[in-house]
Amino acid sequence: MNGAQALIRTLVDAGVDTAFTNPGTSEMHFVAALDDVPEMRGILCLFEGVATGAADGYGRMAGKPAATLLHLGPGLGNGLANLHNARRAHTPLVNIVGDHATYHKQYDAPLESDIDSIASAVSGWMRRSTRPEDVAADAADAVAAAMGPPGQVATLMLPADVCWLPASGPASSAPHRTRTQVGDDAVGSLADVLRSGEPAALLLGDSAMLEPGLRAAGRVAAACGAKLLAETFPPRQERGAGLPAPERLGYLAEFAQAQLAGVRHLVLVDARAPVSFFAYPDKASYLVPDGVEVYTLASKDDDAVAALEALAEALGAPAESPTQAAFRPDRPTGALNAETLAAALGALLPEGAIVADEGNTSGLFCSMMTAGCPRHDWLTLTGGSIGIGMPLATGAAVACPDRKVVNLEADGSAMYTLQALWTQVREGLDVTTILLNNRSYAVLNMELNRVGANPGPAALGMLDLTRPDLDFCSLAAGMGVQASRATTAEELTAQLERALAEPGPSLVEAMLPPTL
Amino acid sequence: MNGAQALIRTLVDAGVDTAFTNPGTSEMHFVAALDDVPEMRGILCLFEGVATGAADGYGRMAGKPAATLLHLGPGLGNGLANLHNARRAHTPLVNIVGDHATYHKQYDAPLESDIDSIASAVSGWMRRSTRPEDVAADAADAVAAAMGPPGQVATLMLPADVCWLPASGPASSAPHRTRTQVGDDAVGSLADVLRSGEPAALLLGDSAMLEPGLRAAGRVAAACGAKLLAETFPPRQERGAGLPAPERLGYLAEFAQAQLAGVRHLVLVDARAPVSFFAYPDKASYLVPDGVEVYTLASKDDDAVAALEALAEALGAPAESPTQAAFRPDRPTGALNAETLAAALGALLPEGAIVADEGNTSGLFCSMMTAGCPRHDWLTLTGGSIGIGMPLATGAAVACPDRKVVNLEADGSAMYTLQALWTQVREGLDVTTILLNNRSYAVLNMELNRVGANPGPAALGMLDLTRPDLDFCSLAAGMGVQASRATTAEELTAQLERALAEPGPSLVEAMLPPTL
Repeated sequence: MNGAQALIRTLVDAGVDTAFTNPGTSEMHFVAALDDVPEMRGILCLFEGVATGAADGYGRMAGKPAATLLHLGPGLGNGLANLHNARRAHTPLVNIVGDHATYHKQYDAPLESDIDSIASAVSGWMRRSTRPEDVAADAADAVAAAMGPPGQVATLMLPADVCWLPASGPASSAPHRTRTQVGDDAVGSLADVLRSGEPAALLLGDSAMLEPGLRAAGRVAAACGAKLLAETFPPRQERGAGLPAPERLGYLAEFAQAQLAGVRHLVLVDARAPVSFFAYPDKASYLVPDGVEVYTLASKDDDAVAALEALAEALGAPAESPTQAAFRPDRPTGALNAETLAAALGALLPEGAIVADEGNTSGLFCSMMTAGCPRHDWLTLTGGSIGIGMPLATGAAVACPDRKVVNLEADGSAMYTLQALWTQVREGLDVTTILLNNRSYAVLNMELNRVGANPGPAALGMLDLTRPDLDFCSLAAGMGVQASRATTAEELTAQLERALAEPGPSLVEAMLPPTL
Repeated sequence: MNGAQALIRTLVDAGVDTAFTNPGTSEMHFVAALDDVPEMRGILCLFEGVATGAADGYGRMAGKPAATLLHLGPGLGNGLANLHNARRAHTPLVNIVGDHATYHKQYDAPLESDIDSIASAVSGWMRRSTRPEDVAADAADAVAAAMGPPGQVATLMLPADVCWLPASGPASSAPHRTRTQVGDDAVGSLADVLRSGEPAALLLGDSAMLEPGLRAAGRVAAACGAKLLAETFPPRQERGAGLPAPERLGYLAEFAQAQLAGVRHLVLVDARAPVSFFAYPDKASYLVPDGVEVYTLASKDDDAVAALEALAEALGAPAESPTQAAFRPDRPTGALNAETLAAALGALLPEGAIVADEGNTSGLFCSMMTAGCPRHDWLTLTGGSIGIGMPLATGAAVACPDRKVVNLEADGSAMYTLQALWTQVREGLDVTTILLNNRSYAVLNMELNRVGANPGPAALGMLDLTRPDLDFCSLAAGMGVQASRATTAEELTAQLERALAEPGPSLVEAMLPPTL
């Protein structure tokens, strides 16, 4: 057994049986070992940003890590933006970065680079395997580290010779930490605060955004009248008719501040006190209004669900709480715009769907118009680095082969990691992409005004995606994806219905106006 | 004048008048300032790897830096692979990375990350502008640092508030270092060695690969009978009929060792002693055979051309030396394969062309079959990180608008930074892409065997680019590039001739067999 075989066997034994790969020469023994450990599913991606974003989507849905396989420092660089998003999502992810053989590094060959420095920016845990007798144990430690809590990116740097030499292993799975239980005293103090009757809000994030947390939070809210808020960009939200529906804080600082207006007590539940996404001249960065008391019920390592349940009990909450009513908008007619697009999605979203949302400006109404749809999951852009939607959808579809994945994808963002479509075809993934083509970096048009800049034609040219127009039907066809173009609400609805009815990848290009 | 205006004005005054951009919100004041300093040409790229690779191509051809404009740590990550290549090419490049406002960083907003660590892996110089009164001087220092010698990536981290606040400036250009002159003693000692008559070779790199260095090296070789070798992947080689033609060392270690066999004295001229690109089990990493004496005539900071000229004089060399004879292959007929493709290129390459070579395995014969073409430049993949060809061609075309750029582009590599085609259309760049579609990561098939791995179907699937086939004509059309597909040598020749005859971007997809 060589190092690569010991490594992969250890990963599989620990439940990590999916690897999103973009290998090079230094990873060839890992690649060869895929045949020796057939339980590991290797999924080829044509760009590393697809591999890392897919591993994020997989980890968010599976609740366990996928592995990546990246080629040296430059491959890690190509995957870095979506690892950044995964870091912000607290996704469990085993990030494997191949490296030159240990003895080869001294020669500073062309692909030599400082992998450690690059990896440090996104990794909660990192280690370089330097001996074949250690690699299996290193892999087991990487999986345990990735599992957290909270989940995190665990980067294992893997020299080529450590893979090809005879190795010890496989290693037994290492235990990972479990969530800390919040003490009764802390829960009791917060119950006292909430019993005061003063205006309060719970701000839910991360692990509190799945059904158990939402139900417990709903009970707390029902008992004390607190408002249910959620962080702006949750990694994964279970939502739809029959579930409590927290109100996500707005992206724009003014919106978030309005949502917090009048609140006296703000209780953080695996969430952070809200800050502005960007700084703007003469605007606040910290968005909690003066006079609001901020409390933490559960921090990111804590068992937020148990803490919410204990709080509900302490407040004598009812067993059930109000939930989102079932509602679907009518099939839209007329002009295709952000509102009719959202209505079409709301009219058609299948039960059990997973929505990978990188719709940005043109997707603004989609969340609202699907709130009352049958139960589904919603994945967002946690770290602000665009180019995640298509990979995220890809990984979610691998993790949940029996569910329909809908990717809301803005045109500008799509162009970062479009290569994901190829992997969707190769793996036969059930992803329907709604390509929101408004021919603009529309969010930047808004931001250009908000930062107080006074744009002329040169500046506006930097935000404009015409000259030439992008034809996403041609781009999709180039990677084997069936695609169609919709220019009216009726066309979009009909094409989306058809796409959702058929298994396998498809793309509907929605031609939208340049601004909301 | 705000910081952004002071910065851009300083860059322009220092000769940096081209910026390849992919901005976000934190860069909006830079973008707005493009209208205030119209001498700066902002060129939008749809992905940061395009921006950095284009800046590399520009710098190699212009001999002065272009700027980039990247969005925070993730944007830098997306551009990192081609910055790695630029670092290996010693390209002068001013890499501008926007950051959150100085006071905003403490809030750890979603896009906050450790830019310094990421940048350190590719930057020969880096600085964070922290005050608007410093930003102009920082920009001048960045340009001077980028100019070297040798050229390097100078990274300037640029907080948003430093851009929007009132600033001092612009700043005067800072002097940059000049190349060190090699002493007469060192030249004299080497002349003594070469006069011995023992078998010798000059290994040329970087600054010795343009006409003045080649002619001086040719004279040295003519005087003492030394072999003229060149490094495997030079940043830019002037070549063609009438110029001395060094023999580039082979990529495979065995080839390079064969080329060095029998050599007794190896003289490095702005080149490094050859090492294997990758390590392989039981093969050497350091490729200089035992018993070869290695000397350095000029290191990377030295004036290699002057040193070569001094050496030629010391050896009493003739004023002229043998040069490459004019030669063009016949227009090929029959099956389209790596050899007939190379013949078509050799038959048609226009005088003054710039070849951006990321042809990899299928492009193997192109260098040989164009050696006797009229004068042209050849740009290679210096750092081994694939995905540079299309951006490199883009930047070269911006730097040299009167010359034809030919991009030899392998299919696997193309899929990393395909978005460059869009910029080629927007800017009306005269780039003809020859897309070498062999439906495989062919180099990895070779490497998989070379590392001694024994591949099964799972491994081979990781190297295979079928299922689905990529249709580069559709992909190009999706970004507005005229494209055609060639399946025979005659078709390729006719299509290439047509593409070269017309200005503006075009793409010819050459359907090649999967192996050489």
